[in-house]
Amino acid sequence: MNVLVWNEYRHEKENKVVSDIYPEGIHRTIAAFLEKEEQINVKTATLDEPEHGLTDEILSETDVLLWWGHKAHEDVKDEIAEKVKQRVLDGMGLVVLHSGHFSKVFKKLMGTGCDLKWREAGEKERLWVVDPTHPITEGLGQYIELEEEEMYGEHFDIPTPDELIFVSWFQGGEVFRSGVTFKRGRGKIFYFRPGHETHPTYHNEEIQRVITNGVKWAHNTNTPTHVYGNQPALENLDK
Amino acid sequence: MNVLVWNEYRHEKENKVVSDIYPEGIHRTIAAFLEKEEQINVKTATLDEPEHGLTDEILSETDVLLWWGHKAHEDVKDEIAEKVKQRVLDGMGLVVLHSGHFSKVFKKLMGTGCDLKWREAGEKERLWVVDPTHPITEGLGQYIELEEEEMYGEHFDIPTPDELIFVSWFQGGEVFRSGVTFKRGRGKIFYFRPGHETHPTYHNEEIQRVITNGVKWAHNTNTPTHVYGNQPALENLDK
Amino acid sequence: MNVLVWNEYRHEKENKVVSDIYPEGIHRTIAAFLEKEEQINVKTATLDEPEHGLTDEILSETDVLLWWGHKAHEDVKDEIAEKVKQRVLDGMGLVVLHSGHFSKVFKKLMGTGCDLKWREAGEKERLWVVDPTHPITEGLGQYIELEEEEMYGEHFDIPTPDELIFVSWFQGGEVFRSGVTFKRGRGKIFYFRPGHETHPTYHNEEIQRVITNGVKWAHNTNTPTHVYGNQPALENLDK
Amino acid sequence: MNVLVWNEYRHEKENKVVSDIYPEGIHRTIAAFLEKEEQINVKTATLDEPEHGLTDEILSETDVLLWWGHKAHEDVKDEIAEKVKQRVLDGMGLVVLHSGHFSKVFKKLMGTGCDLKWREAGEKERLWVVDPTHPITEGLGQYIELEEEEMYGEHFDIPTPDELIFVSWFQGGEVFRSGVTFKRGRGKIFYFRPGHETHPTYHNEEIQRVITNGVKWAHNTNTPTHVYGNQPALENLDK
Repeated sequence: MNVLVWNEYRHEKENKVVSDIYPEGIHRTIAAFLEKEEQINVKTATLDEPEHGLTDEILSETDVLLWWGHKAHEDVKDEIAEKVKQRVLDGMGLVVLHSGHFSKVFKKLMGTGCDLKWREAGEKERLWVVDPTHPITEGLGQYIELEEEEMYGEHFDIPTPDELIFVSWFQGGEVFRSGVTFKRGRGKIFYFRPGHETHPTYHNEEIQRVITNGVKWAHNTNTPTHVYGNQPALENLDK
Repeated sequence: MNVLVWNEYRHEKENKVVSDIYPEGIHRTIAAFLEKEEQINVKTATLDEPEHGLTDEILSETDVLLWWGHKAHEDVKDEIAEKVKQRVLDGMGLVVLHSGHFSKVFKKLMGTGCDLKWREAGEKERLWVVDPTHPITEGLGQYIELEEEEMYGEHFDIPTPDELIFVSWFQGGEVFRSGVTFKRGRGKIFYFRPGHETHPTYHNEEIQRVITNGVKWAHNTNTPTHVYGNQPALENLDK
Repeated sequence: MNVLVWNEYRHEKENKVVSDIYPEGIHRTIAAFLEKEEQINVKTATLDEPEHGLTDEILSETDVLLWWGHKAHEDVKDEIAEKVKQRVLDGMGLVVLHSGHFSKVFKKLMGTGCDLKWREAGEKERLWVVDPTHPITEGLGQYIELEEEEMYGEHFDIPTPDELIFVSWFQGGEVFRSGVTFKRGRGKIFYFRPGHETHPTYHNEEIQRVITNGVKWAHNTNTPTHVYGNQPALENLDK
Repeated sequence: MNVLVWNEYRHEKENKVVSDIYPEGIHRTIAAFLEKEEQINVKTATLDEPEHGLTDEILSETDVLLWWGHKAHEDVKDEIAEKVKQRVLDGMGLVVLHSGHFSKVFKKLMGTGCDLKWREAGEKERLWVVDPTHPITEGLGQYIELEEEEMYGEHFDIPTPDELIFVSWFQGGEVFRSGVTFKRGRGKIFYFRPGHETHPTYHNEEIQRVITNGVKWAHNTNTPTHVYGNQPALENLDK
């Protein structure tokens, strides 16, 4: 399974708080724990590479793409966002992390505003498992607790998810649908909320577990490709 | 309830088969049966009017929009399609008819290709009710039978619908999810398959019943408007 | 629309805290605000009446049933619970309140354990609207706040709901899917969490609003009745 | 993965048409193709064994149970059906085949009547894939065609499925939701329609593929076990 971890990679270069937590960038931290999985080959790509590191060749070879972006969504070229979207519809898995909810790719795939409430106060978050059948929850307990995170609160302006896996409780009084899946075309999408750049969230082993599980879940397993357009009848049309 | 019936209105001017069935246009036939409902005020709009008849003023006054388009989807201006989409997210109901599956408005709201199989052979279609709780099926029997229709076949490349109401059987061997609903933002969307321009489908009383029910269902009933963005805490954040 | 409010009606007779809040019983408080709706005729029934007040005649005339039970679920006769379940499958709406999650009727209709976490500590609950298209949220703001309620926490062992309308935040650190809908047969079911007997929840106007909306939503509107069993072919079966 | 194939095993002993197709019973035909999978250990059990072959020990060791029953649903003891249901809620996967829709186990888990239309006319069935992301469709084309099968027609009286994978077209004019999934407790359930005893359906390689995929999908992967009941607060409840 070929996995590509895409990161905006701007905060880490500009903010010492962030670079202290993620010295090589969020993408390298994520790549490092994914690489421990035998069946996963990991590459990374970042916004400021040519074509954002998302050439046709790389995209066509990618089975599952992870996306972390925040302050520079507008710097992603429209035609590349469109290509990524098409690749998802063709069967590439997509794991959208935290502020990726506002990325061009996610918004194009959702068709809604994808807006939400937020607050940077380093408050406590508790992610409750509400779907105890889902392979993305493999190996977890009843909830994940994060001592300090940014708050995201409802209403989260997304389509009704295909599956609701995690619901977050926040110290400040809000709730959020923090782990949700969507099917689009032949592609499977997992959105996972936590991961603000000023907190060490991606060093948390339970969070790593969820992301690893999510990558495996999002991998399309040679499902059918449909033909569209004008078709001859399969049965006799005589009256 | 203010309802706007939007029609491309090109086939009717160019093809005698179509104009014989819908002399004043598909929009006028649809408007005529909707007008029989006491609580509904009906207006119509067509592609070749200024701004496609979809000015800000008209859109802001519209509670439910019906959309029929087929051969001229590309002639709908991007900025107007975007405005209609935003108005749906803000709470306007949307009833998308037949080939409107490929309209800019529907594709933007779905985020998928919205493609399907099709065949113009005037074959038999039978729409089975699979959700006998749904108000859109009020007054119907177990199925609706249409002697002659265009075929649409799976796979229909849409997101998982919120509700599946009708599944069609076609004489030529295909099936299709013919009546489906979606929630997007504060807006409710009903897609209803039948209605090829060369068949008298919109004169069928059961089809009229479904569309009328769909319009009533899609009407947003003063539900909450959410605030997004940065928010103060509702609870004490002390540790 | 004929509405029947069913209440266990035991706490009110045994506990002064409860009878101070609901002197005539929870059912009478609920009936009182439903009666204000012009199109609704309200009756009540309680556990200790003959046949629990749920005779065949009464059930057959009821369009929507509300159910409040808590400490005496086992005293409801199996055959009556079964009859109520069948009536729901035949099209009667059902609004299940608070501890009714553990009633025989609800458990039979769900097929799961319907268990949950709970705590009686009079803590704060905030019910967030997560589906701003739903008619059950008509007239509400972004959330409902209750100063003192019993806590119910995830995991709530129900089938995936058809719709998720409210998610609760609790002061003690839990979340809960507090407003959910299900379709079963021709019947529509709304489960609504708040309403512990020692708190004045059913005197809260927003809670009353939700219950009233829920009753209207659950009313089946003359949808199709299906025929089951052996059927002749609708089409020619020659090869 | 320990898989148990349960079969009523009555038709095969009483009807030569059936025993010619399945000389050792439907369960042995199914077991034979499942045994080809390296990670699967297969056992079988039948109705007329002591405790129907479903002792506590066997059930506790079973990861995924397949169920084929038809004419003798009533001969399954209530307490054993209840034990199987509980084991599903505890995490055992369940694959329900064909006329198993009317088994006690399935009906208890669904909470609905589970009825449908049917006709034994040996007509053509075409199962269309409507969810091209689903691992249960791995390795398939756009549809599966069966020259001769019993017809099952809508309305299928089940709860809204979590996922709709196959929709069948029947020569005689009906449609059916032929491949559907449900989550109940910690258990995953796959219902798959084809498999009438007088047709060689379980010898069809595509049908075998779907059932094998279904077994793998239904296997719970060590997801969380929730605690229910009275709980202390996780946060300070001071006002």
